[in-house]
Amino acid sequence: MKLLRVGTAGAERPALLDAEGTLRDLSGLVDDIDGALLADEEALRRIRAAAGSGELPALDATGLRIGPPLGRIGKVVCIGLNYHDHARETGAEPPAEPVVFLKAPDTVVGPNDTVLVPRGSAKTDWEVELAVVIGRTARYLDSAEEGLAHVAGYAVAHDVSEREFQIERGGTWDKGKNCETFNPLGPWLVTADEIADPQDLSLRLWVNGELKQDGTTAEQIFPVGEVVRYVSRFMTLYPGDVINTGTPAGVAMGAPEPKPYLRAGDVVELEIAGLGRQRQELKDA
Amino acid sequence: MKLLRVGTAGAERPALLDAEGTLRDLSGLVDDIDGALLADEEALRRIRAAAGSGELPALDATGLRIGPPLGRIGKVVCIGLNYHDHARETGAEPPAEPVVFLKAPDTVVGPNDTVLVPRGSAKTDWEVELAVVIGRTARYLDSAEEGLAHVAGYAVAHDVSEREFQIERGGTWDKGKNCETFNPLGPWLVTADEIADPQDLSLRLWVNGELKQDGTTAEQIFPVGEVVRYVSRFMTLYPGDVINTGTPAGVAMGAPEPKPYLRAGDVVELEIAGLGRQRQELKDA
Repeated sequence: MKLLRVGTAGAERPALLDAEGTLRDLSGLVDDIDGALLADEEALRRIRAAAGSGELPALDATGLRIGPPLGRIGKVVCIGLNYHDHARETGAEPPAEPVVFLKAPDTVVGPNDTVLVPRGSAKTDWEVELAVVIGRTARYLDSAEEGLAHVAGYAVAHDVSEREFQIERGGTWDKGKNCETFNPLGPWLVTADEIADPQDLSLRLWVNGELKQDGTTAEQIFPVGEVVRYVSRFMTLYPGDVINTGTPAGVAMGAPEPKPYLRAGDVVELEIAGLGRQRQELKDA
Repeated sequence: MKLLRVGTAGAERPALLDAEGTLRDLSGLVDDIDGALLADEEALRRIRAAAGSGELPALDATGLRIGPPLGRIGKVVCIGLNYHDHARETGAEPPAEPVVFLKAPDTVVGPNDTVLVPRGSAKTDWEVELAVVIGRTARYLDSAEEGLAHVAGYAVAHDVSEREFQIERGGTWDKGKNCETFNPLGPWLVTADEIADPQDLSLRLWVNGELKQDGTTAEQIFPVGEVVRYVSRFMTLYPGDVINTGTPAGVAMGAPEPKPYLRAGDVVELEIAGLGRQRQELKDA
């Protein structure tokens, strides 16, 4: 299933994109798309049955904003340098174990919402990422298979990053990862049963129409199941938590000088095969 | 005012500790102690008036668990190496600007709840910290005075840290800061009007009755108002966000070998003058 949330920011209603591409209202069936729903197999079964029976009311998509496909996100865990090609372009050694950092849930916005270039920023960069949404509490898992079994679904994430704040201002990467609007998510949460192999997804990102990133999750150093297992040994993952699993090569930081960092007026588009497409216009904060 | 939340985890009710030390029930007046309440001056005035009139029902404190004094925390921002004496003991240069990292809100537990030593941990460490609770949205503030004006109150925080996970396992500090139960908070949220000078508070921490940390916020490299101003330029702070403002000298990492890291069975007690006292027993995860 493709689950989503539509409407004005902070007042989104749950919806479903059916097999024919029609938007269906889920608000008669569930309150929201969130961790509680993802952990509730019976509720998911009810949605599936209603979708199959064709009884869900259609929604007019015209002019309707798409919000992030998940409400009440508990935490956003990010994996750094998780693609062989991206580690090479940044000049970093492939890490011996996953690099972990955090984004605050308040950075999450809809897939087509405006992204703000922070005040004082000269190095705002893009990163298309496969986001993993947790469906069951994951604590001290033992295997990558167990890791995968705790995944409820997948989505496109844009892990917007300010490189000077991240790397040149002291402290940890978090300083350049948590500016407001820095984590567009969506358009959909695609349930895990629809993704045959999370290690065979193509990811692409364009800036002003020019293809910048063209990667595949086959290049991930630590695959999805292993990432979930690994993270679960350092922090407990709860239903509705999100993991951004890293970005492939092609970010501005990896380009020759002068590096093409983002400015107000730029348009970023990104997509992952089967997970949909995002489009953001950049504005000044 | 001293605001707190009492009852079983996840089902705490709002309460107030009055000037006579009597616990008073606030659940007839407000739903919870959270960011929405702290941003609502009218609701705070109503609590103050009810407390003054003596009409609030008393609660029997016997056997009552104290939860964290704040619900629905959006994010926990932490400042590293923010005390001159702590920077010296870790061998680090005093930072030129604040070191920032994040803890997930799900690490927050009550002040006397059990703290779990993570599986595989050999270096679980303590850190008593002054926690600052945000009361108004803070975005690109210009001065430390403005920073202080956005603070709703203060609390004791225990920024439990696993040093091997934090420093020796690659990536950012977050890996050693987000283990479950790693952020006891409380017992109270003391409103800012009751703290004459946040840069003149003594902080102390004991392990098994032995005094380990004995510091003062006068040693902070970046004082509270400046921390709020600085952080607001990198991320937007919302009502109900928490900032742990760093720890003074005396952590296990700073001790001579063999360093006295925490183990199951240890008891940590910590207090900040005017903000109350915590006591945690350590157990294995």
